[in-house]
Order: sequence, then structure tokens, then C-alpha cells
Amino acid sequence: GNPLFASGGITIFEVMSGLARKHNAINLGQGAPDTDGPADIRQAAADATMNMSNQYPSMMGIPELREAVARHNKRFYDLDIDADREVMVTAGATEALANAILGLVAPGDEVVLIEPLYDSYLPIVKLAGGIPKLVRVTPPHWELPRDELAAAFSDKTKLVLINSPMNPCSKVFSDDELGFLAELVKRHDAYALCDEVYEHLVFDGRKHHPLMTFPGMRDRCVRIGSAGKTFSLTGWKVGYITACAKLLEPISKAHQYLVFTTPPNLQYGVAYGLNQDDSYFNGFTAVMENKRDYLMKGLREVGFDVLDSQGTYFITCDFRPLGFEGDDEAFCQYLIEKVGVVAIPVSAFYQQGDVRHFVRFCFCKREAIMEEAIERMKKVF
Amino acid sequence: GNPLFASGGITIFEVMSGLARKHNAINLGQGAPDTDGPADIRQAAADATMNMSNQYPSMMGIPELREAVARHNKRFYDLDIDADREVMVTAGATEALANAILGLVAPGDEVVLIEPLYDSYLPIVKLAGGIPKLVRVTPPHWELPRDELAAAFSDKTKLVLINSPMNPCSKVFSDDELGFLAELVKRHDAYALCDEVYEHLVFDGRKHHPLMTFPGMRDRCVRIGSAGKTFSLTGWKVGYITACAKLLEPISKAHQYLVFTTPPNLQYGVAYGLNQDDSYFNGFTAVMENKRDYLMKGLREVGFDVLDSQGTYFITCDFRPLGFEGDDEAFCQYLIEKVGVVAIPVSAFYQQGDVRHFVRFCFCKREAIMEEAIERMKKVF
Ligand SMILES: CSCCC(=O)C(=O)O
Ligand SMILES: CSCCC(=O)C(=O)O
Repeated sequence: GNPLFASGGITIFEVMSGLARKHNAINLGQGAPDTDGPADIRQAAADATMNMSNQYPSMMGIPELREAVARHNKRFYDLDIDADREVMVTAGATEALANAILGLVAPGDEVVLIEPLYDSYLPIVKLAGGIPKLVRVTPPHWELPRDELAAAFSDKTKLVLINSPMNPCSKVFSDDELGFLAELVKRHDAYALCDEVYEHLVFDGRKHHPLMTFPGMRDRCVRIGSAGKTFSLTGWKVGYITACAKLLEPISKAHQYLVFTTPPNLQYGVAYGLNQDDSYFNGFTAVMENKRDYLMKGLREVGFDVLDSQGTYFITCDFRPLGFEGDDEAFCQYLIEKVGVVAIPVSAFYQQGDVRHFVRFCFCKREAIMEEAIERMKKVF
Repeated sequence: GNPLFASGGITIFEVMSGLARKHNAINLGQGAPDTDGPADIRQAAADATMNMSNQYPSMMGIPELREAVARHNKRFYDLDIDADREVMVTAGATEALANAILGLVAPGDEVVLIEPLYDSYLPIVKLAGGIPKLVRVTPPHWELPRDELAAAFSDKTKLVLINSPMNPCSKVFSDDELGFLAELVKRHDAYALCDEVYEHLVFDGRKHHPLMTFPGMRDRCVRIGSAGKTFSLTGWKVGYITACAKLLEPISKAHQYLVFTTPPNLQYGVAYGLNQDDSYFNGFTAVMENKRDYLMKGLREVGFDVLDSQGTYFITCDFRPLGFEGDDEAFCQYLIEKVGVVAIPVSAFYQQGDVRHFVRFCFCKREAIMEEAIERMKKVF
């Protein structure tokens, strides 16, 4: 097999969800809600399944969804996006990332990435023939090492990948950090691939600021959004890319050969969702913030050192205060087998190194489920 | 951008469907029915959208669909397939092909391909670093050139791609041809990637015989099926791969980073579909065979030299008897602009060469639509 794929393991999220089923453990691992998104959005998709065409739509997506994505960009970020030429719908954000990397990175191009890394980034950069340049942020403060970041750029830099709000560390990049990054991108005549799937999951009154809104960045950014995350329908695998036509064009060439198009019935549902008024989005953020607070309180009571969670679905904890001897993988194994709770070892997001005492918990779950998980942990620790 | 993708054009199917909309022409180009598949299958998906989880299923697919695929293989081909370890669900056959090629082909491996070629094959082989070895079949008889095929294999051959029933030439490989191919694969210790999306579209009493059923080929074949084609729901983008665990494992590694998983609601619909009794499949074949006969008769009346169509959605015609001066692209342009009908130039399926007088028509359309297309052509030619 191709060494790029043959060498790697099964993605940590699938492994942990499999173990959760096997051990009948509470799954606070993989980032997915345990209740589905709004019934009216699902009804819109169900209606389209019965009443609209279920044949190939345009490979770019149905016009209704592309227009809804453009309007969403205007409403929330004051971005003027041409629905016809600057939006493409994809099989989730994972495919969007693959399309963007394969469409933009030529063999020998350098790609700057910030660890901790979502696990599809690096294999696809390598598949494209790109040369990864890794910079890292680390717990507990996940501060951007600006000198190292600047040093990772060169005249060969084609792309920087930025995930904000950032999984797993729940960091929302500050305007100052984004401005710094924007300057580097412009100085090196590079592009930014902006994985912004958690755009509506930012807490404590924060606002998400796409890198694309920064001066001079409009046509240097490829922005990725996710209906799965925004509407709690992760299984639908509907993502969307916003980028200037010049960047979107090669990206669409990758899309047409990797997947080609996205189910039109689900696209109708998502278009309906994006056209909801602000109360949906505000309500969603508020519900998720409450869930974050609930789990955070419980994890503190268990005795974890709980880090700040500014956004995403996730809370990272240092488990050393519990007195556990061993690394994060050992801790997660113990947690599954002895406690009946699944978490994700944060070391899985790093290529190597010394981040070995942190685990990630997912809080987009029903309170009763989180309560039970906390109870189980309290009993043991 | 990555030269692999940046250099190529937009896929011919998207281009032609775009032109059909622009010129308000009858679209007999892209292979997609103009009526949706069974209402009860769509209802099963709509029900799942409302009543089942819409979150990430296993990256391999929901158990119900994997079991339905295994049973389908048993029922139609007497293949014993382990639903747990030998089936993976994908975002349509296009993603299945990409996963298989990227999962199995290492840089420097040779890949044997038979032209005319579906347009995603070659870019993905190149992306994997594979070295394509092209053999061609040509109209009017599309005979397999056995000596050339044998000569295309070497000790570096990793994979041969075989599409039977074959798009666009509507050829169903004979048992003798498949046996010959199987011997080559075994002799060179290679594998076969079997694009069998038209498995239920074989006519005149023919039966589809998967290469996987030939002696010694069970664990050398990766077999790809398509719910889109089998249930006339091309937009759903649900495909399935059947392969022994050893081959499926690296293929699943590509899947997890390219797309990850497939909408569970649509998977329920497809599982329901595959569990239909034989009358669905027989009825489907009969309806499509009637459509083929209907369009074939009309095309003959127009004056085309109409080639045999043993399977798929398609009929290929030689347009020279009409007295048209020019190649197939010119003919298709004339057909769109002056006649109001869209067809696909067969040269689009070849890298280069002299197949320049053939066009492909798609017959999975309502009779009234095909009648109107025929009328338009009769008026002009
Ligand atoms: C594609 S499964 C992973 C879901 C996710 O984003 C996460 O758990 O980090
Ligand atoms: C993915 S669009 C192409 C559909 C098809 O198989 C064809 O028209 O040949």
C-alpha cells in the first residue's frame, strides 16, 4: 500500500468510539453531540428527500446553499462573497481540507502547521508532496510562540493551516495573534487555510473573527465551515469552503476527482439552517456554554487541573493532581477500563514530544450523561 | 496549485450539464436519471433523518448497510463476505476509487488502465505516485487487445483498473476476457480494482460476473458498488467497497483522512434498498433495457450508426453517416447550440488518439424527454 496511509494507525476518534462501545463506557471522546440538531432542519432535509431531485447537483453545491453560505458570511463577518464563484460545498470539513491542501500545495511547497494538529492535516500535506513545518502551542496556556512561527515561514511557504477556535485546546486566537499571522502570510506571499468549523462555538462573550476579515487577507484565505458542528448534525458530512475564485478553482479540481458532489437533500436542510435568524445561533452558543460550564465544574470536583476552554466542544485537563502515575494513553486506558469513561489523550495531536499529562473531554452531551461520567470518576479518584 | 489538479479542466460531465442549463438543451450527457429512485427507499432515509441518530457513524459505515452489502454479494454472486471486516461505505464510487488507489498504490507502482477511462482514474493514480500503463479498446467493437494487455503488465504492476459494465462503451466483459485478465493479475501477483457500479445494468439476459468470483481472485479484487446507480439516486453519493481485510485496511486509512464517514440517514435508505427482493432488481433492469431500446431505435431513425449497448446507462453512436464534418467536440457543440441536445464526446475518455467520431448518449431518461430529443435531431439531420 501507499506508505503515507499504510504506516499510520486508525484515527484516534474511531478507535476511542469503538472502545466506548466495547466497554460500554460513556463516550466523552469523539467530538459529536449525543442529541441531534433542530427537528425543522432535519425536516427540511427529509422533505427534500421526498419532493426534490436526488440526482447529482452541481459539483459546487446547490445554489440555495451557496447563497446561504454567502449571506452567512455577510451577516456574521461583513464579508462580501460571490455565491456563484467563491463558495463550494463538500463532504464535510475533512474533504474540504483535503481538497484545499491537494489543490493548493505543489510538491516541494512548505506548509506551516500549528500543533496540536487535527489528525488528517499531516497525511494530506504529505500526500500533496508538501513539506510540513511544525510549530507548537502547549498547555496550560497554549501561547503562540511568535518567533518560532515567524521562523517557520520562508520563501517556499505556500500555506499555513490555522484552526481557530482550536481543537483540542479550545483556544480562540486573539485579534493580535491573528494580525501577527496575517502579516507573516502577506510578507511571504502565502495563503492561509482556515479551519473554522467551531465558528459558532466561542464562549464568554467572545466573537469569532475569521482571518479572512483581516486587512489584505480577503483573497489569501480559504475558509472552511461545517454544518455538522454548527447544527449538531455531524453525520451529515456537509462542509463549505469560502475562497476567492482564483484559489477555489484548483481546489474544485481536487473535489471533482475525490468525491464530486454532496447530497442535495442534505444541502437543502443546511441551507434552511443557515437561513435561521440570529436567535438560533445565539441560543446554540448559550446552550453549549452551559454544557461547558457544567462539565468544567464536575471535572474540577473530580480533582483535575482544568484548563480554560474559550471555544470548540472540548475541555482539556491535567490529570496529575489526581495522583495517576503514567502518561495520557495509560490514563485513558484506565479511564475506559476501570472508570467507564472515554477521553482522548492530547499527545495524539502531537507528532512527538512531552505533552503527556493532558486529556481532552467533550462536553456536547446531555447533562445526565456528563453527570454520570463525573460520578464514575468521583468514585474512583 | 498542485500541478496534478491545476492543469486539468473541469470534468466533462459538469461542463456539459452546465451547457445544458445555459442553452436549455435536453441533457443526454451526464449519467443520471431524470426521475428519482423508489419512494420507499427515499422514505426510509427520510424516516432515519427524523428518528435515528444523525451523528458520525463508524467510518466503515453503519452495520445495517455493511450487512446488506454482504448479503447482496451472497445473493447475486454467491460471494461470502464478512460484513464487519470486508465492507466499507464511502461518499459514492468516486471516493471509493480514490481511497482504493491511494490506499494500494505506492509511488513507482505501475497501474494498468483500459481506455476509454472514467475521468477521475488517471489524476488519482498520478496523485498516488503510480505509473499509468494504458491499454485501449476502440469502437465499434471495443475488443480487448489481449497481447497489448499482457504486455502492459510487468513485475512492477500493482493494480489493474477494470470497469465492467464499462462506461462509456457499454461493454460487458465476457467470462473469457475476465478469465484472461484474472490470469494476468495472478501471474504478476497484482490486484484488481473493479469499478462495477453498473452491476445491475446489464441487458439482453446477460448476467454481471464480478472478477472477484473468478478462481483465485477472491482476495485480489477490490469491488466497488454504487447506490446511486443501483437505486437511481445518484445525488446521495453512497458507494461501497468489498475487499478482503488485508486490502481494505490500507484503503480505510485513505478514507478516514479524505472524508471519514457517510451520512447515516442515507445509509439506512440504501440498506433498505439492498434488502429489496429480486423483483426490484429485475424490474429495474427491465425498465432500463426498455429505455435503451427506445433511445436506440430513435437514434437509428435519426441516421446514426448506433453501436451495441450491453450494459450501463449509455449508447455510443458514430455520427459520420449524418454527414457532419468535424470531430466529436464540434459535433457536440453543434448538437447543443443548433439542435438543443447534450451528448458527451467519446474522445473525452481517451488521453489522445484518433477516436473522434463517436458521441455518448444517456438513456436513463423519461421517454417523453428522449422522444423530444429525437424529434429535435430528426428535424436538423
Ligand atoms: C471525524 S471524527 C473527529 C471529530 C472531531 O472533530 C474530534 O473529535 O476532534
Ligand atoms: C460524477 S458525474 C458523471 C456521471 C457518470 O458516471 C457519467 O456521466 O459517466
